[in-house]
Amino acid sequence: MQSNTVKAVDWKNDQLVLLDQRVLPKSEVYIICHTISEVIDSIKTMVVRGAPAIGIVAAYGVVISARTHHKYDMSLEQKEEYKSVVLADLNLLAEARPTAVNLMWAVDKMKQCFLNTYQDDSTIAGLLALAKKIHEDDIANNHQMGDLASQLMARASSNPFSVMTHCNAGSLATGGYGTALGAIRSAWKNNLIDCVYADETRPWLQGARLTAWELAQEGIPVCLNADGAAAWLLSNKNIKWIIVGADRVAANGDVANKIGTYSLAVLAKFHGVKMMVVAPTSTVDMALKTGSEIEIEMRTTQELTQIEGMQVAPIGVDAINPVFDVTPATLIDAIVTEKGVVESPNTQKMLTLFG
Amino acid sequence: MQSNTVKAVDWKNDQLVLLDQRVLPKSEVYIICHTISEVIDSIKTMVVRGAPAIGIVAAYGVVISARTHHKYDMSLEQKEEYKSVVLADLNLLAEARPTAVNLMWAVDKMKQCFLNTYQDDSTIAGLLALAKKIHEDDIANNHQMGDLASQLMARASSNPFSVMTHCNAGSLATGGYGTALGAIRSAWKNNLIDCVYADETRPWLQGARLTAWELAQEGIPVCLNADGAAAWLLSNKNIKWIIVGADRVAANGDVANKIGTYSLAVLAKFHGVKMMVVAPTSTVDMALKTGSEIEIEMRTTQELTQIEGMQVAPIGVDAINPVFDVTPATLIDAIVTEKGVVESPNTQKMLTLFG
Repeated sequence: MQSNTVKAVDWKNDQLVLLDQRVLPKSEVYIICHTISEVIDSIKTMVVRGAPAIGIVAAYGVVISARTHHKYDMSLEQKEEYKSVVLADLNLLAEARPTAVNLMWAVDKMKQCFLNTYQDDSTIAGLLALAKKIHEDDIANNHQMGDLASQLMARASSNPFSVMTHCNAGSLATGGYGTALGAIRSAWKNNLIDCVYADETRPWLQGARLTAWELAQEGIPVCLNADGAAAWLLSNKNIKWIIVGADRVAANGDVANKIGTYSLAVLAKFHGVKMMVVAPTSTVDMALKTGSEIEIEMRTTQELTQIEGMQVAPIGVDAINPVFDVTPATLIDAIVTEKGVVESPNTQKMLTLFG
Repeated sequence: MQSNTVKAVDWKNDQLVLLDQRVLPKSEVYIICHTISEVIDSIKTMVVRGAPAIGIVAAYGVVISARTHHKYDMSLEQKEEYKSVVLADLNLLAEARPTAVNLMWAVDKMKQCFLNTYQDDSTIAGLLALAKKIHEDDIANNHQMGDLASQLMARASSNPFSVMTHCNAGSLATGGYGTALGAIRSAWKNNLIDCVYADETRPWLQGARLTAWELAQEGIPVCLNADGAAAWLLSNKNIKWIIVGADRVAANGDVANKIGTYSLAVLAKFHGVKMMVVAPTSTVDMALKTGSEIEIEMRTTQELTQIEGMQVAPIGVDAINPVFDVTPATLIDAIVTEKGVVESPNTQKMLTLFG
């Protein structure tokens, strides 16, 4: 399961090390998170982004919280106090960003482990082992999803074709290898793909800054385009699949993902191009009946009115910055998870795989 | 026909004065074009942009060329030499940008006038009068289109609604008042509209830099959004019309306009939102059967990889930058011209109005 791709999240010398994605591709800067506040801040300010990566960072964040507050030979009372302060940290952590469910999923998993073990001195070692397992499982899942996605694409077309992706669902957004970009990496290795069109993905430019960078580093042919050029490309280039990641998948197969995904899904349907969502089970939220229940994060309008601190719109102009949207299941051809592929998803099929 | 809106193009003290749209909204800088090369350069580098504005500037450019090369009391031979050098200028001028037909339309009109008068000393006065008439007619046409568009919107809805626009088809893109923004100005005056959503319009950010600026200056409520947020807005806000300008309209009603327009038209159809194109007759090219014959300008990929000279994508990354696309007539609800409105356009209806 090794990968030569870059690591967005690493646990090194007992420390959480994050690649600062805000300054890529200009600078490769690593940040060490010493406290839970630093972990939360890193998630909020997008040092780290991408649903699975956020989940992994949160898992390590729980280790950091548990370690910070831990003392040996605590009295029973002290242990309960210890539980309270850690759980308070975990609540703040789970609220760092609202849309990606992997964050809550990872915090919940770690919380269960903590609640089972906080009275023992082995709690921190146990939490760390679980966080590492979440991290390793994510990478393994990505490879598994890559294989499944590649098989799906191979079945649909025998001649090389192009694909389009949106935002960054690559190594940088996961434990490594990637969801959408994992699928693309696997298909590329199998000689299925001749070009990857990368939407630049305003406002944060994840496509220009991260996806183009990741793919170029591996020599996978990537061509950057304005988000508004997607329809023109779909009607003028040999694009067979749009492949994206997800931040949350509802029980009926509705998918929350980076703003602009819904638009692409409508365009894909119009052009007879297939729409694939690649996401691990940790992104599936069977507690939500439909995507309408997913909270859409609204971020600061400065992400639109300024680019790297430079004002591009009139000062004081009103703006709206929803950073996710929900694509209805009816516009999705396949949801690829490590457990299997759900084609033309609906509640029934989702329940069969995830019930 | 007066308007208190900003002037992108002006003929002042016998000089062509252009508002440099590359540095808006930060700076209000005016450039005087002394030579035809400066005029051509201003069009190519987008000091001035917007199909009607480019046409008007080209008309004044012909005046500048004719004036530069003119001598009094020329011999017959000198007059023919004069004709040759001016026509050579006009050819270069007509080729400054390929997609907007207003450029060729204006150069052709001016060329006919020149060919009829170049042997007379009155030629320059005649050319200037024609250029001014083209300019004045454009403003008058915009007001006429604004009235027609507003009536159309009033018929469709009695309650205030929102609209979305793309790129800038305002005062800055025309002789004054605007095509799409002219329609919006008129509808706003008639209390039809409560908010204008302005796509920022990558890569050149005409929406953020120009449309938001124009509308804010007049107190028309404008809200900026990422291009990728259009679908989310269409399904979450009370948007009834998408209103855009055009760079060329083919005989069947296909419309070339800023990249991203085609995407919006597909999204509009999907969401039951109406799609309106506002363009003067000078934008209609009945010589082209369909939009597939329209040349799509490809501009430098630096417009994507750099923002105001700042690198945002990996250095050397491949990119593709088509700056226009073609929206098929079947996706358009109304083409509003100064001659009248063509609803659900097709060749037959277009011929009736423009044949």
